[in-house]
Amino acid sequence: MIRLSLYIYRNPILHFVSSPISTSLSLLTLSLQFEVQMSFAKKEYEFLKEIGLGPHNLGCYASGVWRGNGPVITSINPSNNQAIAEVTEASTEDYEEGMKACFEAAKTWMQIPAPKRGEIVRQIGDALRAKLQQLGRLVSLEMGKILAEGIGEVQEIIDMCDFAVGLSRQLNGSIIPSERPNHMMLEMWNPLGIVGVITAFNFPCAVLGWNACLALVCGDCVVWKGAPTTPLITIAMTKIVAGVLEKNNLPGAIFTSFCGGAEIGQAIAKDTRIPLVSFTGSSKVGLMVQKTVNERFGKCLLELSGNNAIIVMDDADIQLAARSVLFAAVGTAGQRCTTCRRLLLHESIYQRVLDQLLEVYKQVKIGDPLLSGTLLGPLHTRAARENFEKGIEIIKSQACTYFLAVSKNGGKILTGGSAIESEGNFVQPTIVEISPNADVVKEELFAPVLYVMKFQTLKEAIEINNSVPQGLSSSMFTHKPEVIFKWIG
Amino acid sequence: MIRLSLYIYRNPILHFVSSPISTSLSLLTLSLQFEVQMSFAKKEYEFLKEIGLGPHNLGCYASGVWRGNGPVITSINPSNNQAIAEVTEASTEDYEEGMKACFEAAKTWMQIPAPKRGEIVRQIGDALRAKLQQLGRLVSLEMGKILAEGIGEVQEIIDMCDFAVGLSRQLNGSIIPSERPNHMMLEMWNPLGIVGVITAFNFPCAVLGWNACLALVCGDCVVWKGAPTTPLITIAMTKIVAGVLEKNNLPGAIFTSFCGGAEIGQAIAKDTRIPLVSFTGSSKVGLMVQKTVNERFGKCLLELSGNNAIIVMDDADIQLAARSVLFAAVGTAGQRCTTCRRLLLHESIYQRVLDQLLEVYKQVKIGDPLLSGTLLGPLHTRAARENFEKGIEIIKSQACTYFLAVSKNGGKILTGGSAIESEGNFVQPTIVEISPNADVVKEELFAPVLYVMKFQTLKEAIEINNSVPQGLSSSMFTHKPEVIFKWIG
Amino acid sequence: MIRLSLYIYRNPILHFVSSPISTSLSLLTLSLQFEVQMSFAKKEYEFLKEIGLGPHNLGCYASGVWRGNGPVITSINPSNNQAIAEVTEASTEDYEEGMKACFEAAKTWMQIPAPKRGEIVRQIGDALRAKLQQLGRLVSLEMGKILAEGIGEVQEIIDMCDFAVGLSRQLNGSIIPSERPNHMMLEMWNPLGIVGVITAFNFPCAVLGWNACLALVCGDCVVWKGAPTTPLITIAMTKIVAGVLEKNNLPGAIFTSFCGGAEIGQAIAKDTRIPLVSFTGSSKVGLMVQKTVNERFGKCLLELSGNNAIIVMDDADIQLAARSVLFAAVGTAGQRCTTCRRLLLHESIYQRVLDQLLEVYKQVKIGDPLLSGTLLGPLHTRAARENFEKGIEIIKSQACTYFLAVSKNGGKILTGGSAIESEGNFVQPTIVEISPNADVVKEELFAPVLYVMKFQTLKEAIEINNSVPQGLSSSMFTHKPEVIFKWIG
Amino acid sequence: MIRLSLYIYRNPILHFVSSPISTSLSLLTLSLQFEVQMSFAKKEYEFLKEIGLGPHNLGCYASGVWRGNGPVITSINPSNNQAIAEVTEASTEDYEEGMKACFEAAKTWMQIPAPKRGEIVRQIGDALRAKLQQLGRLVSLEMGKILAEGIGEVQEIIDMCDFAVGLSRQLNGSIIPSERPNHMMLEMWNPLGIVGVITAFNFPCAVLGWNACLALVCGDCVVWKGAPTTPLITIAMTKIVAGVLEKNNLPGAIFTSFCGGAEIGQAIAKDTRIPLVSFTGSSKVGLMVQKTVNERFGKCLLELSGNNAIIVMDDADIQLAARSVLFAAVGTAGQRCTTCRRLLLHESIYQRVLDQLLEVYKQVKIGDPLLSGTLLGPLHTRAARENFEKGIEIIKSQACTYFLAVSKNGGKILTGGSAIESEGNFVQPTIVEISPNADVVKEELFAPVLYVMKFQTLKEAIEINNSVPQGLSSSMFTHKPEVIFKWIG
Repeated sequence: MIRLSLYIYRNPILHFVSSPISTSLSLLTLSLQFEVQMSFAKKEYEFLKEIGLGPHNLGCYASGVWRGNGPVITSINPSNNQAIAEVTEASTEDYEEGMKACFEAAKTWMQIPAPKRGEIVRQIGDALRAKLQQLGRLVSLEMGKILAEGIGEVQEIIDMCDFAVGLSRQLNGSIIPSERPNHMMLEMWNPLGIVGVITAFNFPCAVLGWNACLALVCGDCVVWKGAPTTPLITIAMTKIVAGVLEKNNLPGAIFTSFCGGAEIGQAIAKDTRIPLVSFTGSSKVGLMVQKTVNERFGKCLLELSGNNAIIVMDDADIQLAARSVLFAAVGTAGQRCTTCRRLLLHESIYQRVLDQLLEVYKQVKIGDPLLSGTLLGPLHTRAARENFEKGIEIIKSQACTYFLAVSKNGGKILTGGSAIESEGNFVQPTIVEISPNADVVKEELFAPVLYVMKFQTLKEAIEINNSVPQGLSSSMFTHKPEVIFKWIG
Repeated sequence: MIRLSLYIYRNPILHFVSSPISTSLSLLTLSLQFEVQMSFAKKEYEFLKEIGLGPHNLGCYASGVWRGNGPVITSINPSNNQAIAEVTEASTEDYEEGMKACFEAAKTWMQIPAPKRGEIVRQIGDALRAKLQQLGRLVSLEMGKILAEGIGEVQEIIDMCDFAVGLSRQLNGSIIPSERPNHMMLEMWNPLGIVGVITAFNFPCAVLGWNACLALVCGDCVVWKGAPTTPLITIAMTKIVAGVLEKNNLPGAIFTSFCGGAEIGQAIAKDTRIPLVSFTGSSKVGLMVQKTVNERFGKCLLELSGNNAIIVMDDADIQLAARSVLFAAVGTAGQRCTTCRRLLLHESIYQRVLDQLLEVYKQVKIGDPLLSGTLLGPLHTRAARENFEKGIEIIKSQACTYFLAVSKNGGKILTGGSAIESEGNFVQPTIVEISPNADVVKEELFAPVLYVMKFQTLKEAIEINNSVPQGLSSSMFTHKPEVIFKWIG
Repeated sequence: MIRLSLYIYRNPILHFVSSPISTSLSLLTLSLQFEVQMSFAKKEYEFLKEIGLGPHNLGCYASGVWRGNGPVITSINPSNNQAIAEVTEASTEDYEEGMKACFEAAKTWMQIPAPKRGEIVRQIGDALRAKLQQLGRLVSLEMGKILAEGIGEVQEIIDMCDFAVGLSRQLNGSIIPSERPNHMMLEMWNPLGIVGVITAFNFPCAVLGWNACLALVCGDCVVWKGAPTTPLITIAMTKIVAGVLEKNNLPGAIFTSFCGGAEIGQAIAKDTRIPLVSFTGSSKVGLMVQKTVNERFGKCLLELSGNNAIIVMDDADIQLAARSVLFAAVGTAGQRCTTCRRLLLHESIYQRVLDQLLEVYKQVKIGDPLLSGTLLGPLHTRAARENFEKGIEIIKSQACTYFLAVSKNGGKILTGGSAIESEGNFVQPTIVEISPNADVVKEELFAPVLYVMKFQTLKEAIEINNSVPQGLSSSMFTHKPEVIFKWIG
Repeated sequence: MIRLSLYIYRNPILHFVSSPISTSLSLLTLSLQFEVQMSFAKKEYEFLKEIGLGPHNLGCYASGVWRGNGPVITSINPSNNQAIAEVTEASTEDYEEGMKACFEAAKTWMQIPAPKRGEIVRQIGDALRAKLQQLGRLVSLEMGKILAEGIGEVQEIIDMCDFAVGLSRQLNGSIIPSERPNHMMLEMWNPLGIVGVITAFNFPCAVLGWNACLALVCGDCVVWKGAPTTPLITIAMTKIVAGVLEKNNLPGAIFTSFCGGAEIGQAIAKDTRIPLVSFTGSSKVGLMVQKTVNERFGKCLLELSGNNAIIVMDDADIQLAARSVLFAAVGTAGQRCTTCRRLLLHESIYQRVLDQLLEVYKQVKIGDPLLSGTLLGPLHTRAARENFEKGIEIIKSQACTYFLAVSKNGGKILTGGSAIESEGNFVQPTIVEISPNADVVKEELFAPVLYVMKFQTLKEAIEINNSVPQGLSSSMFTHKPEVIFKWIG
């Protein structure tokens, strides 16, 4: 289930190098380029050079060389909306040349014994381990999540690598007894060929890891399109993988990676050379991708929206619950698919939990995600900040006839509710008292906004929990085993 | 993992039929014999005819025919110590002839596709289902457990049959990726050939089911030796299996069964034709069997003694605990390997649980296990009853220096403690207050005797629980999930 | 993965019974109806009464009673295009009432322990076993496949039942070690609720078995829509299942079944109460179903077209290959998704295999599928027969520039090629010599038409094999292990 | 399944340090010792310092420190029977102190989450990787196998580490559906505590890897006793593991390791603190270990003798077969449990295979295993060489009545048959023509002696293959799939 990253190298400055050149030559040029490249605008970005990034970067790795003939975009720091570096995205031609090489490389990769593929993935894990700090720092810088989370995300791929190495010796087929004498059936797992991975801005590298590590040990090449707003992470991660492939004299095209937008995403969805597409992002786009992939009889793995609840029962450890809710609702600035968006409190402890929560919300340190002590970084883009503000307006206006006592005139904002005046995209962590029936509650507002609701019985809590269309993950705080086991089914 | 049951038929009355005769002829004679055979001593035993038993029975099924040239023994009703019927056990020659045929039949049976073997096991399940009431009744009559338990035991084999049928299509081997290019490894499960099953009196048919159902679908023949005191169950069960084999034109020797004592058991343990021996019984004998089997590089499955505890925590549902303890300590008259022998009560609820327990113990109806309403039948043999009496003497005398308050002069009998005057082997259900350190507590008294002990902390309770050499199963009553998960590890 | 079958009974003749009545009453009426119902048009259909069918039948089982308010259709015998019996299909209202009850029954069914659900499936298997001959005969009669295949199809569900019974004790969740101390993760399988099963005419009951047996043990209710041209099989199968549910005092709505056409199929695809839809049929319709189901975030299991090849290598056992090709190409009159449509012969044995094949094709006995000795029954409908004739025209006309020697002016018909003059839908088994590149070869003609092609190398054969869009199953005849293992990957 | 290695440091030279001292102090002393320690006798042994070995070494790692109070032994180079270095073995007191600490450490280790234990094993793998060349060289030097095999053996543990890391996230328990409503069963894997590993001279480190890697991720401490003749490997391997434990601030006692002989082996077998003992070695000793372990209700994993055959069918690729036989019979100087000892040749190709084999045997380069090009190193000890000579005498004398043509007066030596005059333990690779019925063929002569035999049918070959008591691995050379699948069952 993995993909190849193939990059036909074309020097964007020296335009006379017009045709693909050999890997060894391109590497030579590449190393050269590293030395002459200009400095970053800010000194604090200099660490990016340690993971192969410069102020200008080619955004696609195709056929084992770096190239880029699409639009030049700027990677923005969400803490101040200033540029970090420039990236030349993939053009349609880049995509096509990359895919051709990837398709060829797939024939090579699937012939390599699974345990040997596992060894490559092990080396990728080790290469990531060596650059854990820098990669984690870049995730914080470009995506906006706090440093601990940035490093944690890179660690997650490392763990996936370790796990996948073990799996590389367990991809067993079956020998099945037949009901006919002297017959038996053999069942084997053959690689699909190429796996397409389209990831979102909020987990710009962990999600790649889940997909690519398994795909690679399974004998599949990987084609990756990262989010258009996190191109530096896409490039840095790809450089790590590319380095390992090159060191092992394997075609770089085994891992093909494109910086780009919807056009590249659609190309992947339509491409019959890619039997499986893994997509992470909004339900709306996910549905479109699935439709396109299915029409050509391809398969999809979708990781879409969530609207997750935490239920706190009357016997819960309230301190533990409050701490967990804070982490679940405010972490990654509410931009996880698993962010807790709805808090269901038993009426008997409703006020106590709420009081505790308001207390801890006050102490949340907002600011530069790279600074130690920061708990809440900025939203990823200026547009996300505006979306937050629009969402707050809707919350306030939303009338709700079912739950009159609490919200006759819309949701009541208990804390937060405003964007923060600054160069960056910072907003206040927000708690809203609202009816479970309000329409806005059924939608996914990708920001640190938590809806609190009251319930009387477990049955009612489970019904509220299940009353939204998205679902994904839910939690419950209780000490009662009978409730726990009812909860999990 | 299955065995063959082979019986060379010899008519014990008409001695001039001296040589083995063909199956079809023997069946004819058998049916004839059924009609002319004398009646049982008691009218209430007449139902045994419906499952192929008479007042005199041949005790070995070898090579597909019934025979028996060993000693004639009498099956005894433990409720009144009177005879039920006679059985001629297997002689050493019977064993050898049976094993020869079984060894031959193994070659046939392992060639039959696993799903077809599953179909045979399915038919065995259906044949048992048709005689569930009679077989359950026989288990109660000959072993002494109450009717619900007798029927439950037969149902357990039926369930095993259903389960094994499903398994017969899942005995998959593996195709394992090699680290060498163009190589792969195939791993297949081949039948062992013959599985020996030696069962005990307390579960005279369920334990056969666990072993034989799996063995048969795995392609192994089965050689079964039941307990010497439950020969009628051995014969009745074998007749069910034999009937299915014969109906499907398969060699009866696929399932070979011997009534007999230690001599047959030793023969099985020593027999190099039996690569796997499953033994259920005492730790002492089990150890001897294992040693013998291992010396010839055979494998053993042992199901030996237990000395099980129930821990009741301070937050437990006391009513539920008391009911469960009653069932666990008194059920099957304390003759299960999983019988609860030690009750560990938290000091804060010690007296309340004890009071409840003494109350429910008073209501236990003792008597004929076949009568509806009976909760406690007789011990299996007169010897077991004497053993109970000896055990009570030891309990009373056992000094214990560690736990002075409770038992300066030995265990204190809170209820029960005596055998009941009657023709049968009935004893009173007994509760003893005693120190966990008393030597007698570390032994397995196979009778309805429950030792109660007090503890203060979970840690202490777990230490007491683990302080006996036998172990097997333990339970805990609590509502706290943290205790539950600590408990299970 | 199971479904409920719910039928609100309304007598279609006595129209004054206008409202749903209770199950017990309806059953009474039903039994009564059986006695007074008119005879079948032909005496040879009388056996259908043994499986609950009459000349007029209600076509939906909803809420545990039989009803039908849609159009009245006639089930046709493909051997003579005469009526077998009439069926009143489900109306949209029938569907809605049935689904409401099914949705309620799902709450009951998922609460029943899995092994108990397995026991219900076991009883269904036994009930089918008791009517194996009649059900198999009905499959032959209404679908048109030969009797051995009809009985084989019913046997397939019986086998699935046995297998599913075993699975009902193996639906294990996982306890996964966490990397956090004192934490662990529990993973459980919860039922989906309702599984929709839409089956095709060619396997009118086996495909139900694959889906329904697993769904039921998994705790899901089943909603079944059979093919519009095999309503009697749908009704007879449903009666078997309904009988078991009723005997066990379970809501009949656990298994809900509708005779009907595209309207009912679309209703299932759109129904948000049905999280999983299993569809078997053409790729075109399957794609539409998938799109509809995906739009509501439902899941699909698709079993669509096939265009299967058999490759015969130069070292193959030619006699074995010829026999197998006959069975694969002519069996079920070429109306299996796994029918062999393309025969790839190594040039060195091309003529020998072809000669053998033409010889065995001559001996194929065509006729009434219920007659012993018949090898080839009719196509399922008059339309299928016309389709065959159109296909033959296209084959003849198809020019092919790549493979001039063989088929300058289209495919060359070596044997067969015509429909047979008769009341039924019989056609000749046909062999066509044609280029692998001819357009018609890439399509699925659902009839006993076999395209033969020549190849020189294994590589070439695999390329031809993979050159059609459908794929599904392929076979190869060879003795060489290196070829076998290359073939399976 | 892992063990602790605990060593209380006592300086063997400075005898006034008589009592155990703390870990930190001992480490200090240890580092000091490294610097002052004398040089090796030969310059070519200097590389041993890179893996922590000196001319004098303490032979037990107990409680996280190095100690040794048993006899001082000398490690011998089998190529010249000269000393490599000295080792002070463990005394009984060392053993007891080590086990006490290991028993305590087990409580810590089993509490560490499995994925964290996996991380430790990953680090062990990396530490081994860093010293692969030196460790492989030591294996060749001390054991006598050629360098490629020495390095291969160390690589095998590295691979095991990688595999075990993956497993550390897959030690899943089960949640099993109960047949009782509202009940479910949880099944978890808890660590055993301590796993004892007793390894043999022929695979002085790979076998440790198989056992220890799995034991450690499973949460078990490891107690290792290596072979008395390969103490340097035991110490070097232990130093690698110890280094990782110390770096992670874990008790060294998690991995406890003893150099020693039968006394230590018996102590492990008897020790009730060690629930599982894995033993590799001769069948005779293995049986004794098993008996001792079983008597205390412990479990055993035995890896004992082998007497493996290669069957070459008439259609085999003879060149491939000859090369494989050479590797299988001569590799590791015939001192593998999987060494091919019997070559079964179909009569039609008997002479051709033999001729080829005699040809390749002539070219086998015998000599120092560390030299490139060497194919056959020395036997491990002088005693093994003498044993070879005795074996050859028996072969020559063994009369065999069944196979008169070939061996009227015993086995006929076709090549080899002598020890080589030298300082080392070199012997000639030997081929013997002999009857399969000769008694000597049924025994395991641990040397490069190959018995060749003729057969006529597959059935006969399989019978000969199965006619020895040991069995373990067998191979077959053929192209026929029907033979292959018959062969594997």
